[in-house]
Amino acid sequence: MHIIGCGLIGTSIGLALRATGVEVTLEDPSPTAAAIAQDLGAGRIRSEDDGWPDQPDLVVVAAPPDVAARVVVDALRRWPAAVVTDVASVKQRVLDDVRATAGDDLDRYVGSHPMAGRERSGAVAARADLFDGRTWVICPIEGNTDEGIAAVRRVAEATGAAVVQMSAADHDDAVAAVSHVPQLAASLVAARLRELPTTAVGLAGQGVRDVTRIAESDPLLWTQILAGNAAAVAPVLDALSEDLEQVRDAVHALLDGAGDGARRVLARTIADGQAGRARIPGKHGGAPTAYATLVVVLPDEPGTLGRLFSDVGEAGVNLEDLRLEHGAGAPVGLAELSVLPAAVERLRDELTQKGWRVHE
Amino acid sequence: MHIIGCGLIGTSIGLALRATGVEVTLEDPSPTAAAIAQDLGAGRIRSEDDGWPDQPDLVVVAAPPDVAARVVVDALRRWPAAVVTDVASVKQRVLDDVRATAGDDLDRYVGSHPMAGRERSGAVAARADLFDGRTWVICPIEGNTDEGIAAVRRVAEATGAAVVQMSAADHDDAVAAVSHVPQLAASLVAARLRELPTTAVGLAGQGVRDVTRIAESDPLLWTQILAGNAAAVAPVLDALSEDLEQVRDAVHALLDGAGDGARRVLARTIADGQAGRARIPGKHGGAPTAYATLVVVLPDEPGTLGRLFSDVGEAGVNLEDLRLEHGAGAPVGLAELSVLPAAVERLRDELTQKGWRVHE
Repeated sequence: MHIIGCGLIGTSIGLALRATGVEVTLEDPSPTAAAIAQDLGAGRIRSEDDGWPDQPDLVVVAAPPDVAARVVVDALRRWPAAVVTDVASVKQRVLDDVRATAGDDLDRYVGSHPMAGRERSGAVAARADLFDGRTWVICPIEGNTDEGIAAVRRVAEATGAAVVQMSAADHDDAVAAVSHVPQLAASLVAARLRELPTTAVGLAGQGVRDVTRIAESDPLLWTQILAGNAAAVAPVLDALSEDLEQVRDAVHALLDGAGDGARRVLARTIADGQAGRARIPGKHGGAPTAYATLVVVLPDEPGTLGRLFSDVGEAGVNLEDLRLEHGAGAPVGLAELSVLPAAVERLRDELTQKGWRVHE
Repeated sequence: MHIIGCGLIGTSIGLALRATGVEVTLEDPSPTAAAIAQDLGAGRIRSEDDGWPDQPDLVVVAAPPDVAARVVVDALRRWPAAVVTDVASVKQRVLDDVRATAGDDLDRYVGSHPMAGRERSGAVAARADLFDGRTWVICPIEGNTDEGIAAVRRVAEATGAAVVQMSAADHDDAVAAVSHVPQLAASLVAARLRELPTTAVGLAGQGVRDVTRIAESDPLLWTQILAGNAAAVAPVLDALSEDLEQVRDAVHALLDGAGDGARRVLARTIADGQAGRARIPGKHGGAPTAYATLVVVLPDEPGTLGRLFSDVGEAGVNLEDLRLEHGAGAPVGLAELSVLPAAVERLRDELTQKGWRVHE
């Protein structure tokens, strides 16, 4: 297998595949990046001047979104028997660009998107299990052979990812709504905090922290992603903007003394949000499970959380989810534990016995 | 002390104050709500027909935002020596309405806002430590006496809350930006998921889950809050809308073949979001602390998290924060542990020794 692009994603794929014993060769326009990836154990730098190694049967293009298509077409030409995939987080634009110049070679292109990343980039940030437990989307096209699709699937599964197949257009529409527009919304809400007085941002609670967490993302990468998926992002942004204008009109109407109609718009907005939120699947892609929650008060002392979880473990209860919260200036925090409803009573009793302040 | 309104907030205040030995009387337009609160131990129902009890020195009005002012003015008249506070989550509107009719009694009104709530409402959902570790904003006005302000502060502190003082207008501007507009943004983004194909919402990762978590909130309560704070919400929504229109224009311009200018708008949007996000204070209201993170792979077996935290506890390391993640259809989850940078190496070594797959 050959990997073109020794950044975070390409190097991580190399590390994961090498760990399963697959032969991996590497290449990058930057000799330094390739050397680092090789040193990390992601594979060997390809050197065809020596007549080594054989033609690759699979090529993974892990180049930035804006050059992915060009590198894919180049790879299809260099190795006329190889299946070529890419890992760009937008798929239709790459497919269109490959289709425009690849000719009959197009049949050997199988686009894909491993849905994983980190806040850091480059080979040095790579890790062998970056894709462990993540979703890896494969976007087959008419003309792909079953063997070609299976080859890409094997790479994805070897990294520990769960494979989902859909068309490039469906992928792009999906990530526009579940990733790209949420990113923009988080950034826009966070941007509103810039000029706030310090006492005002001091009132920030868990809600705004959650809403704006992904606003920490990298501007350059996200500019490429948003530009590459502009066609799918535009209609979602249009709809969001239309909804926002209705809310704005309602709020201004209330200021002008209007009543019930404006209140109805606000109530419908929050209710529609509840309905959309309820569609996000729970753990393991299944339907959301209704968990019971316990709230435990945490004194700010070293080892508090470790002690709590040690006690939860001794109670023999499996935690399904956990959320931590700290109020501004507060001497204690709160841990919200989600467990199966059948276990909640036992857990509450055991933790209370051990001296925790517990609330349902 | 007397509490008017035996819903979630009023009953919880009663429970918290009773726990510190304070005498509490209760009242609610619904005899059933008052009886439940009394049965729960939040205080005794006031019955002035018997000439009992004495005049209250402090009255807490825990009525819905849209009737709070009327109930406050009524209380100021009934007990001409009492300090009266309310707990509505909007403050300027309540103050204006009280000022319009209270006359000289206004000096005895000290508005406040305990920043806590639950997804459930009513006396049955009340808990004595609802405010433990939360922020409680007090909004004094000219004319309030030091003793009056101190009386409200004592109630807040007795519930375990941390008190912050600011003007009603500053409070409303702050919560518009750190609470009300984030709520609307979360609901609007979540609403976009309603008509998505099931395979598309299946790609939802941790990002959109965080952005939309508070979209689960109650439509009726939020309609009252947003309507009550329309004056402060409007300018934040206007600015958000203006920013969103710029992004929309940029995305459409890219579709029409435009280039660098549109990309600059997108990059600036994400960068502005980073700057705003960085202003949110960290634990305990201090400056954000840079924690080191470890990612631990979690097999989906009963007791996994309990076992992990028991092992973390044994390593003697204090967890500062924790985030759980499950990919769609994945057999494993990931736990991201935040710890002080000095502890990260030791924790990684100890967990690895105990058989966990750990990554920095």
